[in-house]
Amino acid sequence: MTIFERSEYMDRIRRTRQRMEKAGIDVLMLSAPENIYHLTGYAGWSFYIPQMALLPADDEEPVLIVRDMDTACADHSAFLESENVVGYPEDFIGSPNRHAMSFVADFVRKRRWGKCRLGIEMDAHFLTARAFAALRSSLPDAEFVDATCLVNWVRTYKSDAEIEIMRQAGRIADQALLAAYEHIAPGVRECDVAAEMFRALIRGTPEFGGGVPENVAMPAGVKAAAPHLPWSDSPYSTETGVNIELGGCRHQYHAGLARTIYLGRPPAELRRLSTVVLEGLQAALTTVRPGVLCEELVESWENVIARAGYHKASRIGYAIGTSFRPAWIEQTASLQRGDKTVLEPNMTFHLICGMWKGQHNLVMSETFRVTETGHERLTNLEQKLFVKD
Amino acid sequence: MTIFERSEYMDRIRRTRQRMEKAGIDVLMLSAPENIYHLTGYAGWSFYIPQMALLPADDEEPVLIVRDMDTACADHSAFLESENVVGYPEDFIGSPNRHAMSFVADFVRKRRWGKCRLGIEMDAHFLTARAFAALRSSLPDAEFVDATCLVNWVRTYKSDAEIEIMRQAGRIADQALLAAYEHIAPGVRECDVAAEMFRALIRGTPEFGGGVPENVAMPAGVKAAAPHLPWSDSPYSTETGVNIELGGCRHQYHAGLARTIYLGRPPAELRRLSTVVLEGLQAALTTVRPGVLCEELVESWENVIARAGYHKASRIGYAIGTSFRPAWIEQTASLQRGDKTVLEPNMTFHLICGMWKGQHNLVMSETFRVTETGHERLTNLEQKLFVKD
Repeated sequence: MTIFERSEYMDRIRRTRQRMEKAGIDVLMLSAPENIYHLTGYAGWSFYIPQMALLPADDEEPVLIVRDMDTACADHSAFLESENVVGYPEDFIGSPNRHAMSFVADFVRKRRWGKCRLGIEMDAHFLTARAFAALRSSLPDAEFVDATCLVNWVRTYKSDAEIEIMRQAGRIADQALLAAYEHIAPGVRECDVAAEMFRALIRGTPEFGGGVPENVAMPAGVKAAAPHLPWSDSPYSTETGVNIELGGCRHQYHAGLARTIYLGRPPAELRRLSTVVLEGLQAALTTVRPGVLCEELVESWENVIARAGYHKASRIGYAIGTSFRPAWIEQTASLQRGDKTVLEPNMTFHLICGMWKGQHNLVMSETFRVTETGHERLTNLEQKLFVKD
Repeated sequence: MTIFERSEYMDRIRRTRQRMEKAGIDVLMLSAPENIYHLTGYAGWSFYIPQMALLPADDEEPVLIVRDMDTACADHSAFLESENVVGYPEDFIGSPNRHAMSFVADFVRKRRWGKCRLGIEMDAHFLTARAFAALRSSLPDAEFVDATCLVNWVRTYKSDAEIEIMRQAGRIADQALLAAYEHIAPGVRECDVAAEMFRALIRGTPEFGGGVPENVAMPAGVKAAAPHLPWSDSPYSTETGVNIELGGCRHQYHAGLARTIYLGRPPAELRRLSTVVLEGLQAALTTVRPGVLCEELVESWENVIARAGYHKASRIGYAIGTSFRPAWIEQTASLQRGDKTVLEPNMTFHLICGMWKGQHNLVMSETFRVTETGHERLTNLEQKLFVKD
């Protein structure tokens, strides 16, 4: 019932161990649900309570430690032998005085890892400050090494099987944005448009279904500068730009996609901005090929928009892939000035050219993969300012 | 643009300060998005990056510290004076060497709170181990006090205005479960049923729209014991029970609702189980009134099911209310043996009677509020085993 072959998981584990060795880590302790999923296949939405995957340098498989009732989720999703799925008892749940991390610590000691160098994701959501304190006080002889993003970097280089799933996520994203375009109009409530987008995102296509993405934003008019606010049940006005950003989601793999839909007749200045953004986005895409640095895409983009008198302070994208909660950003390669990451085949990015400042604002994005010679678009919607007049 | 009156926020702050005084806390530092929302109104979905609300014992308003670009979200949702919304610069984002918590620490020192007793939510998601380490090393003279769940307890006692919103969430939950019942059938894909549920959850009613709830589970057949797995795109089989759990969501307030839908002719043993569960659920509900302890509801439930030869190891519910990510459980009062919390008017619970063990399993739940004399159901769907033959 796993999504990938066992050999694919073992390859990910091999590449993780190479990074562990460089960092001098004996046992890697994973808290980020994406990273647990990547190395074990475990797909349970149980990360709101303590759980961990432990990857020692020498054993074959990782060990997954989850709440006892969630071992059933592991049976249906992880590639692990059943002896490598460990459940902790129910009385660790909701107890202010007992922390499940002390169960994890006991397990670590039993496996004789109590004096090892333990890699831990210090900046992962779902490893709370208290969880780490419990772990550290129960393992006084261990040395803790910050391993934040170690597996994120393994995830950044995708396999062909992963790329195929991201293509599916891209198709879902395309049709969800078209669903928004079909239903949006002055007088229609924001929540009704959101409902149709989610319906399209989750139905997927007749061949494959979708999931709930990490982010769907649709700020309009004066709220366009506040993209992290949820939709309301107010109706859309006429003569308004709506910046829609969503993600197709398939097996937790995300393809991001953003377009602006203008309700009414777009002002000349907005049309001009959209022409420049489109040209800049295409300039960045054309730059993509193995060996190029992330910052070179930004230079291509900036050359175009600077010529037209525009400026954008924030970055134009980031590596994208698997995500549970709460964001689909891979936290590794970043399309920003100063990022010297070298592009390699099967890296995937969400290139998002959002111009938020000023009277008129606009967003246009594309999810792409690096190929042997250039790029492949994983989202394929027409690149333009959408207008509903 | 706030959802509640300023006076309501000030009343919540007053009740929070009473708890701060008891705990000897000079300044409360909030990380949980629900708690920030409760005391400031801030509704931005920006909790994937560092942010905090600081509530000192003596000033009038809390101070909200968010990423600079998210101050616009605060303008549209928080009740605070603009001087109490502080943005930190963009160069704290994605930087492994600078943590936004050092900005927060600088702010704390500037306000002369550097030697105070600071209350911190050590077990809140979104306060990572690294964030706390950054805070502690930047504030060596402060004393940190664990304030996990302090504001959760303030949230547990709802105002009439909050109850009205939860009634709306309950109506949304009812209609979403009916949408599932309408669309589910053998041969229909799980994702297509999920799509219709989400559409109903987000559309809401003509009077008010909905949001995306924290949890929608719909495990079927052999996967029914693994309720934290997401849906698939496999079609439903006939002669299968589907345990649907969802939440209506309105302004982040949740009303949970669960029912089992049986596709086919339910086996006699499942029918018997559903009769017992219904009787047990009603016995628990009938016990509700101010002054009763949480554990007394459990006793009423257990008396009924034990007579019929059944047993349930896990709890039968929990306080419910506002939530962003990743769970809607309020983490305070719990409907379990040993919980001595006294019921008071306007407490709200999700009473969920899930029987997961054994060959046949079933779930039935209700969200209710404690009234002056008993209870009010906030979800109102027929209490029965739903059958689609």
